[in-house]
Amino acid sequence: MKTDKILLDHGSGGLATKNLIEDVFMKRLSNPFLSPMEDSAVLDLPPGKLAFTTDSFVIDPIFFPGGDIGSLAVHGTVNDLSMQGARPVFLSLGLILEEGLEIKKLEKIAQSVADAAKEAGVTIATADTKVVEKGQADKIFINTSGIGIIENKFDRIGIDRARPGDAIIVSGYIGDHGASILLARSGLPFEAEIQSDSAPLNTLVEDMLRAVPSGALRLLRDPTRGGVATVLNEIAQASDVDLKIEEDQIPIRKEVQGVCELLGLDPLYLANEGKCIVVVDKDHADDLLNVMKQHGLGRDAAIIGHVEKKRAQQPKVVLQTTIGGLRIVPILTGEPLPRIC
Amino acid sequence: MKTDKILLDHGSGGLATKNLIEDVFMKRLSNPFLSPMEDSAVLDLPPGKLAFTTDSFVIDPIFFPGGDIGSLAVHGTVNDLSMQGARPVFLSLGLILEEGLEIKKLEKIAQSVADAAKEAGVTIATADTKVVEKGQADKIFINTSGIGIIENKFDRIGIDRARPGDAIIVSGYIGDHGASILLARSGLPFEAEIQSDSAPLNTLVEDMLRAVPSGALRLLRDPTRGGVATVLNEIAQASDVDLKIEEDQIPIRKEVQGVCELLGLDPLYLANEGKCIVVVDKDHADDLLNVMKQHGLGRDAAIIGHVEKKRAQQPKVVLQTTIGGLRIVPILTGEPLPRIC
Repeated sequence: MKTDKILLDHGSGGLATKNLIEDVFMKRLSNPFLSPMEDSAVLDLPPGKLAFTTDSFVIDPIFFPGGDIGSLAVHGTVNDLSMQGARPVFLSLGLILEEGLEIKKLEKIAQSVADAAKEAGVTIATADTKVVEKGQADKIFINTSGIGIIENKFDRIGIDRARPGDAIIVSGYIGDHGASILLARSGLPFEAEIQSDSAPLNTLVEDMLRAVPSGALRLLRDPTRGGVATVLNEIAQASDVDLKIEEDQIPIRKEVQGVCELLGLDPLYLANEGKCIVVVDKDHADDLLNVMKQHGLGRDAAIIGHVEKKRAQQPKVVLQTTIGGLRIVPILTGEPLPRIC
Repeated sequence: MKTDKILLDHGSGGLATKNLIEDVFMKRLSNPFLSPMEDSAVLDLPPGKLAFTTDSFVIDPIFFPGGDIGSLAVHGTVNDLSMQGARPVFLSLGLILEEGLEIKKLEKIAQSVADAAKEAGVTIATADTKVVEKGQADKIFINTSGIGIIENKFDRIGIDRARPGDAIIVSGYIGDHGASILLARSGLPFEAEIQSDSAPLNTLVEDMLRAVPSGALRLLRDPTRGGVATVLNEIAQASDVDLKIEEDQIPIRKEVQGVCELLGLDPLYLANEGKCIVVVDKDHADDLLNVMKQHGLGRDAAIIGHVEKKRAQQPKVVLQTTIGGLRIVPILTGEPLPRIC
């Protein structure tokens, strides 16, 4: 059966499924773990702690400046593992396809998955494909779960480890992903194209872990949905501290600032897919920043604030504005930005 | 914000997401791995081999006789791990929710996940929730990925290990899940309710692995999508052998047979969610069968055929019919049965 679109039959589990998997996926993703097509992949891992994470991707549009849902799904899970100080090793790939999806698009996405996995040094070890009727999903949804190895020599990295005095670093320009997607979706004419920052942070994090003594790097977090503001609030809550950030230290591209003004959004709440927030012992902050700046993905890293002792009952995040005022930065509420990742 | 339905805001990553997770999931699924709400769970596993698998569930209807999408998602992944001879330990839970889904239904599903995980002895270690606009998904899709431990004392279990002479066992009545879903969907009046067989096979498999010498149990496979016929064809292909099964040895409930006649379906192609196909050294087949029959989920197990040397270029599956003829049982093609799991 020759077709250029996904049919319900491709999800039957029978011959059409087998052919689709071989033609579209095995050609690009084949490896000794995935290729036997067993119900589970069999992995050999060194003893020690593992990190395990899952993320579903429902982004709209599925192709966007700087990436597509395939590369994003790999980067997102690679980054979630990296944020735990783990070295990402194996990923799963769970696809939900809408009947009628063009197979050419699926091939392009499969190629993006393969390229992104190769770049990040991870193996797609196990996969699954389901098809639903036209109108019961939107083109393609992808779940990636991931396994990473945590080297025992590092102290635990955790969202509850921020201490008063610690420095807060962001690894580069914020809001690029969110601004790019919202702009693409708005259909508004806008001179400059904004690229998503979608990228795998694992090698940057490896460099960072080596740069400072074990324990000095308190925590890592990637500010995806909900943006920098939401992550900072989660850190404040989990560590029971206040965070103070300085507006004029936060790296924001002019174009992103422009889109935010156009659409009435705050860049602190825009999603990032290739950035991390770091909390580090202040005595090692400059060393860490220098190492980050030597990595392509940390070139524009900056110290944006510091951790303070909690002043009131509730931990809070405070922004020192460019014009000198102070304002509280709450966790994201109100206007939702759906399907940003 | 008090609401009895899922809103887009529940997927924002901000406060509404946090509240939904706490109210619906943490109440039921809280454990030391999931509760810190880090980007990844940190797992401590014994040295040795691991099994890793992923499966997305898009079943329609989401509630059906014998289970719901929540219990099914746990059973499906527990079973995929078990089929590799692994002891399932950790599961991930990735949810895609449609705007407008009733929160009461989500709570019921979360409870099913919790109950099924408890019964199977697995921990939900990491989770993710996304929300898409009304009409862009159908109520709820669930991805579960899983990690299991493979004890080193067992020989490899693999789909390529069937050898001529081996016996083929099925662990019980076939087609219950598929018949149950199709009947529920058809809206046809039918006297008897057919229950899905959705169940966790891990303790049955543990008993089976202990029952026979290492190596005698060649392979395990759960005949889900595509049914027994598709799994047998996959075994024939991977092991490069013919399989011969006997129609009058295959356990099929009268009610399932009835639904098949009503809807024009072959029970060999109906999905099962609590059954396994076993290929075992013929000298140990009776011992294994006896052990299986002592387990609640193997009570109706039967030897349904055996492995033969390949006769022609292409491996094939042959059915000896009740009336004495032989017919080839191909891999599933043609009429798809969408969203059966």
